[in-house]
Amino acid sequence: MDPYLCSLLAGRHLGPAPEPGERMPGQGIARVVEAPSGGPVRPGNRVVLDCGWTRWLTQPADGLQPLKLPPDIPPQTALGILGMPGLTAWAGLHRMATVKSGEVVAVSSASGTVGAAVIALARAAGCTTVGISSAGKLDYVQNELGAHFVLDRGQPLPEQLKNLKVPRIDVYFDNAGGAVLEAMLSHLALNARVVLCGMMAQYEQIERPPGPNLGPVIGARASLHGLVVYDHFDAMPTFLEQAVPLYQAGRLHCHETVFAGLAQAPEALCNLLGGTSHGRVLVRLEPSF
Amino acid sequence: MDPYLCSLLAGRHLGPAPEPGERMPGQGIARVVEAPSGGPVRPGNRVVLDCGWTRWLTQPADGLQPLKLPPDIPPQTALGILGMPGLTAWAGLHRMATVKSGEVVAVSSASGTVGAAVIALARAAGCTTVGISSAGKLDYVQNELGAHFVLDRGQPLPEQLKNLKVPRIDVYFDNAGGAVLEAMLSHLALNARVVLCGMMAQYEQIERPPGPNLGPVIGARASLHGLVVYDHFDAMPTFLEQAVPLYQAGRLHCHETVFAGLAQAPEALCNLLGGTSHGRVLVRLEPSF
Repeated sequence: MDPYLCSLLAGRHLGPAPEPGERMPGQGIARVVEAPSGGPVRPGNRVVLDCGWTRWLTQPADGLQPLKLPPDIPPQTALGILGMPGLTAWAGLHRMATVKSGEVVAVSSASGTVGAAVIALARAAGCTTVGISSAGKLDYVQNELGAHFVLDRGQPLPEQLKNLKVPRIDVYFDNAGGAVLEAMLSHLALNARVVLCGMMAQYEQIERPPGPNLGPVIGARASLHGLVVYDHFDAMPTFLEQAVPLYQAGRLHCHETVFAGLAQAPEALCNLLGGTSHGRVLVRLEPSF
Repeated sequence: MDPYLCSLLAGRHLGPAPEPGERMPGQGIARVVEAPSGGPVRPGNRVVLDCGWTRWLTQPADGLQPLKLPPDIPPQTALGILGMPGLTAWAGLHRMATVKSGEVVAVSSASGTVGAAVIALARAAGCTTVGISSAGKLDYVQNELGAHFVLDRGQPLPEQLKNLKVPRIDVYFDNAGGAVLEAMLSHLALNARVVLCGMMAQYEQIERPPGPNLGPVIGARASLHGLVVYDHFDAMPTFLEQAVPLYQAGRLHCHETVFAGLAQAPEALCNLLGGTSHGRVLVRLEPSF
C-alpha cells in the first residue's frame, strides 16, 4: 500500500485514474505458477511486479526477473525498505540533494517506509537527522528508527524548530506538503536542498490547496526538487549495494503492518492514509502461497 | 530604483529595514570629488556603489573602483542592463537554470530591467522566449525587447499557455510570484528549472500570502532555485564579456524612465511598483554632475 494510490484515484498522479470496476494498481510480490521454459523466470520463482490488487495474474514473462535478495532477508522488504520506497529515499538524498557528511537532514512522515529509509541512509552518510511525525509515533521514530531529534507535527513547528539543538536544516525531505512544508521552508540553512516527494496533506483533498510562500526559499538560496522514483530505477543496484549490508547490520529497518487477505486491502489503504498504522503497510494473500 | 526596496521597507529583505529618518539604501553612480592620492580612485572618476538616496557621501576609498565601460556606452547602464539587474538575469539563466540552446524560456515582469536582460541573454543562448507582462507593455516586450511570444498577465494564463505555439516551458524566470508563478508551474516541461528571483506580487503586502501548490513540480520533476544576485558578483566580468558586445550590437537594451531630482525618488519608487513605468527607473540628481 502506497500513499500515491489516493492521488491516483483522484486523477492527480502521473497516469490516469482507474475506472470503477478496473483493478486497483499496486506493487506486489508474486510467485510464478507457470512459465514458458527457457524464459527469464521458472515456476516457484518470486517476482516483484505491478500486479495490482489481485490473486492471480497472467503476464508476459519478458521483463520479469526472479527476486534476488540474500536468503536471510524476508522477501517483503523488496516492497519496502529494500524496494521502491528505499530507492526513493536514496535517490532524493544522493541524486537530488547530494547530502554531505555533517549536514542536518529533516524528513516528514518520518514513521513511513520512505521516512525510515531517509533516516537510516542519512545517518549512514554521516548526517544529523530530524524526524517529523505525529505525537504517538515520535518514540518509534527516535528510538527504533534512530532519528537524532524529533518534531511533533501536531504542535506548532516554528517554535520547535527554534528550540532545536542543531543548526538550520540543510536537506529537507518532504513527504507531507501543507503546513509542515511551509514551516520547514522558513528554517532552511543557506543553500539548502528540499526534496519534494509526496503531498500526504493533500492526497485526500478534491481541490489542490494553496502551497507555501516561497519568499524564504529565495532568502536561503535554496533549491526544491521534484522527485519521481520511476526516473531512478537504474540506481537500484547501487542502492541495494549500500542498503543490504545496512539492513543486515540492523541499521535499516521499518515496522510492518500486515493485513491478512485481499478483502482487507481497502481497509489497509485507509489505515495508511489515516495515519493509524505505521511503517510499511502490506496485504498478505490468504491462504499464503 | 529596484523592486526589492519595498520588501526591504517591510522588513522582509535580507538586511534590516531602515528606520524612519535613516537614509534609504540603493545603488547609484557617483562622481568622486575628493580622494586620497595613491588610492584606487581619483577625483573625476565615476564609481558604482551603494550610496543610497543622497547627493553627497563620504566613504572609504578602499573597495571603490572607477567605472570601466567602453566610452560609447552610457554610464547609467552600469545600474541596469550592464549592472546588477543584467547580472541577475545571467546568473539565473547560466548558473541556476543552465539553459541550453533550443529550450523555451519564459520570464515574468518581462518589461523590467531583469526581464529585458533575460529575454536578450536567452535569445543569445539560442532559446525561444516568452515574455509575461501587463497588456499595455506587451507590444514593447515583443517588438522592442524581442520576445518570440508574449502572455498578458491580466488575462487567465492557463488558456494562453495552452494556445501557445511552443512546447511546455523548460526554464521559467520568476520575478512575480503569486498567480503568475502558480500558472507557470502547471505548464512546465519535464525536468524544468524555475528561477525564483522576486515576488513582485507580494512586495506591498504586510503578511506573506500563501504560495503555489507544488504538486505539479513533482509531476514535472522540476527544480526551483532561489536566486540572490549578491552571491554572483564574481561572475560580473564573465557576464560583461558577453553582455557588452550584445549591447553594442543593439541586441541587449532596456527602456529607461528617468526622474529628475532626488525629491522625485519616492515618486519614482511608487511608479516602479505600481507598474506605470517600464524598463529601468532611474533618478538623476539635479543639477547633474
